[in-house]
Amino acid sequence: MTLDADLRNRIIKAVEDGFDAQTAFTQKLVQNPSLRGHEQSIQDLLFRELQGRGYKMDRFEMDRAAIEAHPGGSKFSDEHSDAPIVVGIHRPREEKGRSLILQSHLDVVPEGLHDMWSDPPFSGKIEGDWMYGRGSGDMKAGAAANLFALDALRSIGLQPAATVYVQSVVEEESTGNGALQTFLQGYTADAAFIPEPEEEMLVRANLGVLWFQVQVRGVPVHVREMGEGANAIDAAYRIVAALREIEEEWNEDKTGRPHFEEEAHPINLNIGKIEGGDWASSVPSWCNVDCRIGIYPGVSAEEAAKQITDRVKSFADSDPFLANNPPEVVFNGFYAEGYVLEEGSEAETVLGRAHEAAIGAPLESFMTAGYLDNRVYALYNQIPSLCYGPKSRNIHGIDECVSLSSVKKITTTMALFIAEWCGTEAVEG
Amino acid sequence: MTLDADLRNRIIKAVEDGFDAQTAFTQKLVQNPSLRGHEQSIQDLLFRELQGRGYKMDRFEMDRAAIEAHPGGSKFSDEHSDAPIVVGIHRPREEKGRSLILQSHLDVVPEGLHDMWSDPPFSGKIEGDWMYGRGSGDMKAGAAANLFALDALRSIGLQPAATVYVQSVVEEESTGNGALQTFLQGYTADAAFIPEPEEEMLVRANLGVLWFQVQVRGVPVHVREMGEGANAIDAAYRIVAALREIEEEWNEDKTGRPHFEEEAHPINLNIGKIEGGDWASSVPSWCNVDCRIGIYPGVSAEEAAKQITDRVKSFADSDPFLANNPPEVVFNGFYAEGYVLEEGSEAETVLGRAHEAAIGAPLESFMTAGYLDNRVYALYNQIPSLCYGPKSRNIHGIDECVSLSSVKKITTTMALFIAEWCGTEAVEG
Repeated sequence: MTLDADLRNRIIKAVEDGFDAQTAFTQKLVQNPSLRGHEQSIQDLLFRELQGRGYKMDRFEMDRAAIEAHPGGSKFSDEHSDAPIVVGIHRPREEKGRSLILQSHLDVVPEGLHDMWSDPPFSGKIEGDWMYGRGSGDMKAGAAANLFALDALRSIGLQPAATVYVQSVVEEESTGNGALQTFLQGYTADAAFIPEPEEEMLVRANLGVLWFQVQVRGVPVHVREMGEGANAIDAAYRIVAALREIEEEWNEDKTGRPHFEEEAHPINLNIGKIEGGDWASSVPSWCNVDCRIGIYPGVSAEEAAKQITDRVKSFADSDPFLANNPPEVVFNGFYAEGYVLEEGSEAETVLGRAHEAAIGAPLESFMTAGYLDNRVYALYNQIPSLCYGPKSRNIHGIDECVSLSSVKKITTTMALFIAEWCGTEAVEG
Repeated sequence: MTLDADLRNRIIKAVEDGFDAQTAFTQKLVQNPSLRGHEQSIQDLLFRELQGRGYKMDRFEMDRAAIEAHPGGSKFSDEHSDAPIVVGIHRPREEKGRSLILQSHLDVVPEGLHDMWSDPPFSGKIEGDWMYGRGSGDMKAGAAANLFALDALRSIGLQPAATVYVQSVVEEESTGNGALQTFLQGYTADAAFIPEPEEEMLVRANLGVLWFQVQVRGVPVHVREMGEGANAIDAAYRIVAALREIEEEWNEDKTGRPHFEEEAHPINLNIGKIEGGDWASSVPSWCNVDCRIGIYPGVSAEEAAKQITDRVKSFADSDPFLANNPPEVVFNGFYAEGYVLEEGSEAETVLGRAHEAAIGAPLESFMTAGYLDNRVYALYNQIPSLCYGPKSRNIHGIDECVSLSSVKKITTTMALFIAEWCGTEAVEG
């Protein structure tokens, strides 16, 4: 049931009125350097914020055994975070509407070289319409929007007339195991919503992602006898070339895939990190290459992983040095399928109306080539899983920033969406 | 003047008699993990050993300004050792013979991955004829031989009838600045001798060596926008390919170079170390590649460095990404010319006789493709600079070891050489 014009206008004004406080809170989140494995304090901050608003609280750890046993579980490594998952729970006085999961992640990707940033990476500096900082767009603005969309309703005496779970997770940037743990913990609802920085658009389809490390070992020798030894760094270069062939084959395989065949290069293999050798004058005995590659929805992580492992093995068999020093492929993070948001869901219709009311233009959808936690809700909860959020620049890059005017707009969309999806009831009965 | 048969036999026996003690001392040196920047304690050990034998002692620091001002000075970096140089000085009662520098270095190259070693890298384990450990061959066996060749003479009541400097240096594996500092400190003699592990042969010609780091920087982006960003690791691979072209050109340039044109591949470019990127899912913004390349004697370091810098620049200019993100080439270690030991020196003739007496076969000479401190004595002291030493296996590699029977033989050669080159006098006047 669509919102009446009066309620709609009151909600729009309420988001506007709360936006200074929302901006200040977003800045506080950005200033917390919640890198992988360092999200303990920020999860506690979210816990206190949710508890202070009167939500019932749940806080739990990742269950490694359960995650590893689940087909959607990504691979653990020594770097895996052990920060808790935090859930704030709103229950209505009367359960009339449709329930909702509002999710965000508070882990951020590495800053990169600090001297490339105009300001320190966790400054939270505001300049014109933009708030700067690692994680500002991805996705602390969204995490704050989850809270302040609900706050806006409350500020006009309303609350959702259905259960809402506000989930704050970690490990979204490396495994997606935080989102999976909410599923394993038994949380579900009639829809899920994640305000990732998606340029005020809805994600229609999203690739899966695999992380793996290629480990080359070789017998080091004095450089004067290079012919006898084998250079592990050179050998790693050759394996990367073989992996680039898989990348090309998978890109050619886009034909007939509805959301991908129009893309020039939907599958990206990223050589993200490399380390090898000890110093210039020894032929290096080791080289590790950290890679990330996308996979189409419907392709299982296991199937893709087997193709990668087999290709590295068959290439190594053809290479004189590698045949005698077989490289290893270790999957050490994302091991996640993609998903498609099927058209025609009631959740999308409601979001479309909210978006038009807030932004004044029809809602557009698009394909994204990065990992999204929405896959857990789409594939395992099997509920409509909406990913929609603000305009940003340079996420994962240098001088990442988020548009504050866009954050206000998408928060308005969210508040309107919640009011229609869940329905509303008076805070005081 | 050749040694008489009786003296020769007494010296041979003296080395034999002292060899258990020499082996024990060699093992003690191998067990000291004197990696670059960690040679303080082993230089003190040498100081005490030399002082205990009654040598006059000198100990001094590297003079960075003087080294940098000298054309043979290699480049400093944060990793440069600040361990002292130690010199033990023998002066005869009567200066009748030819003076001599006996040099060795006690810095060792990195161990590589420990789990590839059969025993811990600094075990000093003896198995059959072989003593194992990083630095056993390169060149702790030689460092001990310097002391014990002199000890052998002393054990039969003799000492050199000329000044002998026993020099223990560091930085041989990375810059050669330790040897240069002995020159800058004013030390010189009628010949220099370094017992590097050279398979019981004499080094006739030796390449110079350059170290440099290629530093690539690029704008990192989310991997979903890879086309817009630039992968610094991929760009580094392209630069390495351009450097391989220089390597090939320099190898083709061997024609007409007496000691090198017979070699299949005299010039080696080693990609020794690589580091880049922060993790799998960000397009890497940086990559550093540590390289080492050889240069022919007569080619100055400056001239070769210019070729490398120019080539990287011209390649970068042709590369869409690198043209906008110019890579840097930083020379950060060896910046050293090669040398040739001209045939016909009296020092070589004397060594030839000593070798035949100790080993029973004519002395052979050969070209080596690695750096040797002998270049300092050849190029700057301008004295005959002999490099000759024991058989070894896997120097700079895994399970490095030195042949103890060979060490005994070359120590005998050395003692005979010293006796003839310097002449002898009774220890007690």
